[in-house]
Parts: sequence; C-alpha cells; structure tokens
Amino acid sequence: MHLPNIPDIVVQRLPLYLRILTILREQGQTITSSQELGTRLDISPAQIRKDLSYFGEFGKQGMGYEIEFLISQLKRILQVNRKWNIAIVGAGALGYALVSHFGFEQWNFHITAVFDKDPQRIGQRLGNLTVLDVTKLAEVILEKNIQFGIIAVPTKEAQGVAEQLVTAGVRAILNYAPVSLKIPKHVHCHSMDPVALLQSMAYYQETQDA
Amino acid sequence: MHLPNIPDIVVQRLPLYLRILTILREQGQTITSSQELGTRLDISPAQIRKDLSYFGEFGKQGMGYEIEFLISQLKRILQVNRKWNIAIVGAGALGYALVSHFGFEQWNFHITAVFDKDPQRIGQRLGNLTVLDVTKLAEVILEKNIQFGIIAVPTKEAQGVAEQLVTAGVRAILNYAPVSLKIPKHVHCHSMDPVALLQSMAYYQETQDA
Repeated sequence: MHLPNIPDIVVQRLPLYLRILTILREQGQTITSSQELGTRLDISPAQIRKDLSYFGEFGKQGMGYEIEFLISQLKRILQVNRKWNIAIVGAGALGYALVSHFGFEQWNFHITAVFDKDPQRIGQRLGNLTVLDVTKLAEVILEKNIQFGIIAVPTKEAQGVAEQLVTAGVRAILNYAPVSLKIPKHVHCHSMDPVALLQSMAYYQETQDA
Repeated sequence: MHLPNIPDIVVQRLPLYLRILTILREQGQTITSSQELGTRLDISPAQIRKDLSYFGEFGKQGMGYEIEFLISQLKRILQVNRKWNIAIVGAGALGYALVSHFGFEQWNFHITAVFDKDPQRIGQRLGNLTVLDVTKLAEVILEKNIQFGIIAVPTKEAQGVAEQLVTAGVRAILNYAPVSLKIPKHVHCHSMDPVALLQSMAYYQETQDA
C-alpha cells in the first residue's frame, strides 16, 4: 500500500533516483551521497534528501547512502520488486520499438500481450510475441493478469482502446497517442507525446536565423 | 523572442491547448470556451484562462475563444508557425518508429537526417531518408540548419551523442535513453522514459493480487 499525501512530483522523481543508483552500481560503486546524486541528476541535494525522507531514513549523517540498500528500498517503495504484466495495443512501428528497444523486462515489466485490429498484423510475430486480435483484449487481460496497458495506436483510436483497457480491468495506462484520454480517476495515466515536448522546446529558441 | 518569467509548466501546457484546439477544428467547431477545453484536458478552466493571460487577451468575456484565431496565436507564441529541422541519432526500431509513427511533419518538425554508427545500417533507407554515418553529424547539422536532436541510441551511448549534438550547435534535445544527460544550460532537454513512468504508476497500485 502506498503512503498518503506524497506529492506526485516526488513519486515521479523516485524512478530517476533508482535509475542513477543502478548506473552507479553497474560502475562498481557502493556508496553515494545526495551531493553526487544531485550533480548527476541536476536536482538539488536538499530536494533529494527531502524526497527520500518522506519514506524513511536511508542514509547516515555524513556517511551517505549505501547504494545496494537504497536500490532495494526504492524498489520496495515503488512496488517494482515484483513483476507487472503489460499489454501493448498497436503492433505497428511503435509497438515494435516498445517490445524491442526499451528493455522493460529488466525492470520487471513483462510485456505479456500485443494486440492489433489489422488482420495483416494479427498472427504475425512481434519480438517474441504473436500479435493478438484486439477483440480478444478483455479475455486475455483477465487470463494473463495484466495490470498495465500501453496505447500505441493512431490518435483516432486511442480513446476507444483506453475504454476497452479500463473495462478489462487495467489500472494504469501509458498513452503514446497525442490526445488527452477521458478515463476514470482510479486509473493512472501518463502521456508520451514527443510533438508536445518539441513544441514546448521551440518556445525557448532564439529565431534570428529563421 | 519568448517572454521572460513564464513558468515552464505553463509553456508545457500550451501544446496541449494547441492539440485539443486542432482536434476541435477538425471536428468542424469554430468557437470554444475554457470550460470545454478544461473538460477535454482535465485542467481547470481558471488555470487555462490564467495560462493564456500570460500571453495576451484571446477571448471575449462570455463569448469564448475563436478556435482558428487561438490556434494561430498559440503557434506564434510557441514558434511552431515556422519549420524546425530535426536530426535523429539511432536508426534502430525506435528510430524507425520516430520517422514513421508520430507525424512530426504535420506539426512543422521536419526530420532532416537520421544517423547511426552501425555499418549495417548506414546507407539503408529509414522511411524516406538514408541513414548517415554518425561521424558526419556535425557537418550535416551545420549544412542542413538542424536545430533539434532526438537521441534514440542505447543508454551507454546517449551522453556521447548528446555532447556531439551540442558541439554541432543543436539547441534542444529529446532524449529517449533512460539516463540524465549532462549538457549546458542553454540547451533545452526533455526525457522520454517509459520505464520511469511505469514505475511511478506502479507506486499507486494496490497489490492484494500480487
């Protein structure tokens, strides 16, 4: 069970801490400090100490943090020390990038099923999965105990797919379509929209060379 | 030139307004309100009015917003009424999804060059581009007036690629590698890390079925 009253923004930084700690461990390091983490992440050391203090006491004053211990604690807090099952809807180029590029498995996110509505794609291999007919979505999500959905379909289909995922019992959605989904409050949802981020970065550009 | 003292979070919401306005226009609508936009985006109408008021007066009291006018103003403010050139580094599955799935072109983001270091990929087609040798990066970025870079290489190569992009004069980076990049303050950077978002959503899940 998660703790109440932790700001979302704090929860969203915990994976960044876990990620850099994992990199430091891979480099053979065993101890770190809020200063080092801060430099690596461009977050103030005070912010890092405050974020972690919501969840307990993980370092000793003047001694820093034991990397292995803090990794295990962050995994416990984030509930990623257990396996989560994921369904991807959309078996096009983006679906293929999702199953092959990001290494979800090494983070305990198991891509359990990939769906598409296109008869040309259904039955084909995508990575080590066979693309399933999206009409089977509810059945497969129940059967395989899938908790997370990733939407990788064209924009116009995204809302319909989101509703199917929610009806099927999925409790968190990562949405790659550039549209705000209407879904119940109890289902968590994050958007991944590269165009929106490029646009917000365009705002800051000097344009004397335009 | 952008206005000073506008919170980043406001700038990051402007593309969401532009996106929903574009969808409403496609549906044939000509007028909208902060109430309607708020419902569609799950943002309070007061927040939307406040965000827009940083940049001017775009609606008439009780009359709502003219969609066409607000779209053109948001495009002007975000500087996306002009074309921006983008280089993608990494011509694997993610690079292919980026050139083929997201429709950057329709938003005035022109994918001008794709680079890779793998001799097997260099010279191959990716969408309608030919994959270039990453050793040509600086030269091509200058020659083609490329302002934005997208990093789609494996994690271990991301920092090196970021440095090459910055040295070549790129002024904004979208980073798909799960690592915080060390780059100069004048270069804007956003991360797209699906694992980090899945982890932050795992935090909120009830786990009685674990």
